[in-house]
Amino acid sequence: MKTISLLGATGSIGTQTLDIIREHPSEFTLAAISVGKNIDLARKMIIEFQPELVSVQDYHDCNTLKAEFPTIKFTFGQEGLIETAVYDKADILVNAVLGSVGLHPTLQAIECGKVIAIANKETLVTAGHLVIEAAQKNNVPLLPVDSEHSAIFQALQGEKEKNIERLILTASGGSFRDFTRQELKNVTVEQALNHPNWSMGAKITIDSASMMNKGLEVIEAHWLFNLPYEKIDVLLHKESIIHSMVEFHDSSIIAQLGTPDMRVPIQYALTYPDRLPLRSSKRLDLASIGKLHFEEMDMARFRCLGFAYEAGKKGGSMPTVLNAANEVAVAAFLEGKIRFLQIEDLIEKALTAHQITTHPSLTAIQEIDKETREYVHSLL
Amino acid sequence: MKTISLLGATGSIGTQTLDIIREHPSEFTLAAISVGKNIDLARKMIIEFQPELVSVQDYHDCNTLKAEFPTIKFTFGQEGLIETAVYDKADILVNAVLGSVGLHPTLQAIECGKVIAIANKETLVTAGHLVIEAAQKNNVPLLPVDSEHSAIFQALQGEKEKNIERLILTASGGSFRDFTRQELKNVTVEQALNHPNWSMGAKITIDSASMMNKGLEVIEAHWLFNLPYEKIDVLLHKESIIHSMVEFHDSSIIAQLGTPDMRVPIQYALTYPDRLPLRSSKRLDLASIGKLHFEEMDMARFRCLGFAYEAGKKGGSMPTVLNAANEVAVAAFLEGKIRFLQIEDLIEKALTAHQITTHPSLTAIQEIDKETREYVHSLL
Repeated sequence: MKTISLLGATGSIGTQTLDIIREHPSEFTLAAISVGKNIDLARKMIIEFQPELVSVQDYHDCNTLKAEFPTIKFTFGQEGLIETAVYDKADILVNAVLGSVGLHPTLQAIECGKVIAIANKETLVTAGHLVIEAAQKNNVPLLPVDSEHSAIFQALQGEKEKNIERLILTASGGSFRDFTRQELKNVTVEQALNHPNWSMGAKITIDSASMMNKGLEVIEAHWLFNLPYEKIDVLLHKESIIHSMVEFHDSSIIAQLGTPDMRVPIQYALTYPDRLPLRSSKRLDLASIGKLHFEEMDMARFRCLGFAYEAGKKGGSMPTVLNAANEVAVAAFLEGKIRFLQIEDLIEKALTAHQITTHPSLTAIQEIDKETREYVHSLL
Repeated sequence: MKTISLLGATGSIGTQTLDIIREHPSEFTLAAISVGKNIDLARKMIIEFQPELVSVQDYHDCNTLKAEFPTIKFTFGQEGLIETAVYDKADILVNAVLGSVGLHPTLQAIECGKVIAIANKETLVTAGHLVIEAAQKNNVPLLPVDSEHSAIFQALQGEKEKNIERLILTASGGSFRDFTRQELKNVTVEQALNHPNWSMGAKITIDSASMMNKGLEVIEAHWLFNLPYEKIDVLLHKESIIHSMVEFHDSSIIAQLGTPDMRVPIQYALTYPDRLPLRSSKRLDLASIGKLHFEEMDMARFRCLGFAYEAGKKGGSMPTVLNAANEVAVAAFLEGKIRFLQIEDLIEKALTAHQITTHPSLTAIQEIDKETREYVHSLL
């Protein structure tokens, strides 16, 4: 029996994590959750899973729930998030919050020796060096939950790091895969949220449309698998069936495939190094799919991917700026304040304006993150 | 440094095994080889690799070479094949002979504790139970060299047997993939030998055209990976890029991919559990390939595959009959004695006529093999 603490329980990854726990009641138990502002859904989760600790975003919601569930402990805010992340009965922290807000709880949980199942890619993008250093120091495994990184992680089982030639991250192309740059000028939020293969949260769906999601994943892969950016490639594969691949120096490639179903990588992180049945997942039937397509990635078409490689290679505080600028820009797009292509303009301006700090501390990262957000807000 | 004994050195797998040894002189040394009747090529190999022991098929060739290379030990015939297989300085036996003649040397090498790299699929088809029993008893690894089985073996690294849902062997479809049964009636030997993806020996190329090769591989997979036939599927994939796959019970699929190059699986067997660079192998470029195609296998179109499943499921001596009948029928087709579709007719007759022996001994298998050959010859 593994005991789980789950940050971001009401999000897409959070609810699917609960699906896995529900499917395997003798394998997993839920000890603690954090939720945002979706208190109705949180209430249902509390009733079903009876966690011992629940953290909410706002003080007011915390008090409301306390009155309703007197036997459960409630907390709130950033402090609550950390309290949930380090909850002493949990063996595994599933970090499925959105954005760099997940960084501090992750570092704290690592210090407490928790196994980390990481779906919060912004944490690794904004401060990968600190997270990896802490994980190594505390001998804590970082298990990827993103489908691409889980694919690579699965492909690497039984293999040696020294034999890796390159990683090949596949990209569906997102909602605007077949749009020209001219056509991208006037796309709506509604169009951007209509992903062809995956049903995900709003922020990651916009990131997929701008290809920033793949850029963040490239940086995440750099840290998780300890490889230089020259060894991380991106390949357009519109069906999202091959979730990613590893090429070894003997030219052999190991790939992980499946229907697009996030429960598979989530469950793999929870069961690793073993697997458990997932009967409710739709089996891949390649004969009925018939064809898989592959195309080179066009960096001029998808500028955000280029920004991510550039920020990653420059290193230091650049990925922090990339991520913070993107978070603000995407939020502005979702709120209808800017057009789609302005997302990349804002990111480019933030990267250009930034004076790099090498090996930034946690305090420096938090400061740079804040400054970048203010700077991008000032441009809106 | 690993020391290798190689049976079938002048064949397609044999010469490619020598390519690998040549590419990694500090990793591998060649102690012993067996060759057939290609004495000119054998002579070149002896000069280049200086093996200590050489076995040839005929007594006459043995004497000729003895006179030319007085410091090297020569032997011949079936006894010579066994002497080469068990050569005491060798750590690994690469068995790349053709047909069930490879069985006895394999069993003897297993008794002597050699690691077996098995390219000789007929050995596992004709007497899989004996080979597996012997390997388990002597704690000897059986490393697959066939590209499909190597793919599965690579996909299984770091995984548990209990979690396997099914194996998916891919099939290119061979020379006549797009021919109707009507069109198959009058195909020539020359057409049959023109495989679209792989350059291989004549027998295996004909087996690919009849789909018997995939049938033999299904039986081989049954023994190598200890799975019932219900868990072994075949998928038509004309590009031969995905070499095979393993589906686990969480619906995740691990596949091994690459350009069609037999040196990759050969080298993997020799370097297992490690890998070595293979710089001369052409890297897979999926973007330039563009599309991978998949189709269901039509058992009515490819009757030999159905025969193989049937023989495998019945078990006992049936696979021995399947293999022996196929060997004789293919040889007859290559000699122009029968038409292409008569291969399957002859196999069907041999299977129908056979009274099954359950768990046959080595002697019984050799007897049934001989009887089947005589029976099929009598039908020519």
